[in-house]
Amino acid sequence: MNPESLLSRIRVVLCRPSHPGNIGAVARAMKTMGLSSLYLVQPKQFPDPEADTRATGAVDLLEKAKITASLAEALAGSVFAVALSARQRDLGPAIGQPRETVARLLAEAEHGDVALVFGNETVGLSNEEILHCQAAVTIPTNPDFSSLNLGSAVQVLCYECRMAAFSERPPVAGQGVTPFVSPTASLDEVEGLFGHLESVMTDTGFFNPAQPGRLMPKLRRMFGRVRLEKDEINILRGILASTQVKTGHGRKD
Amino acid sequence: MNPESLLSRIRVVLCRPSHPGNIGAVARAMKTMGLSSLYLVQPKQFPDPEADTRATGAVDLLEKAKITASLAEALAGSVFAVALSARQRDLGPAIGQPRETVARLLAEAEHGDVALVFGNETVGLSNEEILHCQAAVTIPTNPDFSSLNLGSAVQVLCYECRMAAFSERPPVAGQGVTPFVSPTASLDEVEGLFGHLESVMTDTGFFNPAQPGRLMPKLRRMFGRVRLEKDEINILRGILASTQVKTGHGRKD
Repeated sequence: MNPESLLSRIRVVLCRPSHPGNIGAVARAMKTMGLSSLYLVQPKQFPDPEADTRATGAVDLLEKAKITASLAEALAGSVFAVALSARQRDLGPAIGQPRETVARLLAEAEHGDVALVFGNETVGLSNEEILHCQAAVTIPTNPDFSSLNLGSAVQVLCYECRMAAFSERPPVAGQGVTPFVSPTASLDEVEGLFGHLESVMTDTGFFNPAQPGRLMPKLRRMFGRVRLEKDEINILRGILASTQVKTGHGRKD
Repeated sequence: MNPESLLSRIRVVLCRPSHPGNIGAVARAMKTMGLSSLYLVQPKQFPDPEADTRATGAVDLLEKAKITASLAEALAGSVFAVALSARQRDLGPAIGQPRETVARLLAEAEHGDVALVFGNETVGLSNEEILHCQAAVTIPTNPDFSSLNLGSAVQVLCYECRMAAFSERPPVAGQGVTPFVSPTASLDEVEGLFGHLESVMTDTGFFNPAQPGRLMPKLRRMFGRVRLEKDEINILRGILASTQVKTGHGRKD
């Protein structure tokens, strides 16, 4: 199944969200990652202008969002559900890391609709809601400050879904532009530069061939790391030549 | 270097942010992932109550945020900077995927402070700003809707930083609670269940031993996938026994 179709099978289910702004942020987060199926279980306030504002260009997801009276209703017809939970529950499924859990979610999506289930901003999911899910996931946070915004949590998991659906190489924008690059310089061209540089430094008195010290090895070491391009060799030698014209010395190579 | 120290070396630099609310959301996103060093280059409006509101418990990051007049000033003393850019620029560094770029950022953080650089909400980073950075990254988005919120972009990259700093296994909250688990049942206990089940089904007439068909193989297949625990065997056999009391048949195993 192609990545876009897999992503279209993922429902994002928000249980009892309190703030309509968060619902809008969730819609925006989903759409940026190619998800489109939003379910709202007993939203406190929806529809709402604040949701539309925060959704920006993702209002279409809000318009077709399904509102249900229970989590079971939101999961009807799906084959696998993952609960976001910050803490392990006694009888709940073991909490996994995002990357491994999302990989499993996408494997299950080959068989039908799947769901990512998020709880209320303040109290999270109830134990009963967690037991409707076959897996649980937490987003690892700073133990001293784990207050992840609902929209941010959805953003992170939807991002992981997109990364996984495209096998960690989703296409990136702007690939039509090829960054400027010149062919790599050959080693004899690099040697030509070193000779030119040594000659100039000798003329200026910066380098004394009778007492060479470690100057040239250090310059070789530095330029060795750069992997110079032909174009760059030309620029550097142009600079060197220009100093020679200025100081009255001719090019010597 | 330990993960927390590595994360503390990552500066988040916002260039010319327009909305104070976004600055607050960025602070919150950073702190949830263990980052703390925020730089603001020419913020349009800061400090601002809206920033404090959106930061919730991360106001301390706003209070110690450094405000600078230029990107160069924000990068002073750092050894490596990554630009977030949605599109490739002609002379800019090649744009990489988040995971590989963040891995490089953390490798560089072993040597000193590093930076993640974000542009203005509407116009992004200027070409000149991008050229101050040694690498560029994009967050792969839906090509039909790439409008990632600034706070969300920071959240995703800070999350990747945390995952990478802890080698993809950051500690998760609530690990003190051990989910309920009973020892796995032995195969003879499972056979005891099958025998009990077959006996009950024979008594009720649901199963005819003379014409067994595929009923028992199907039940074995199903329970085989469950990997039953001792506790669950006890529950299931309790249910079976209760039906036998009800129907007047004694336990037969």
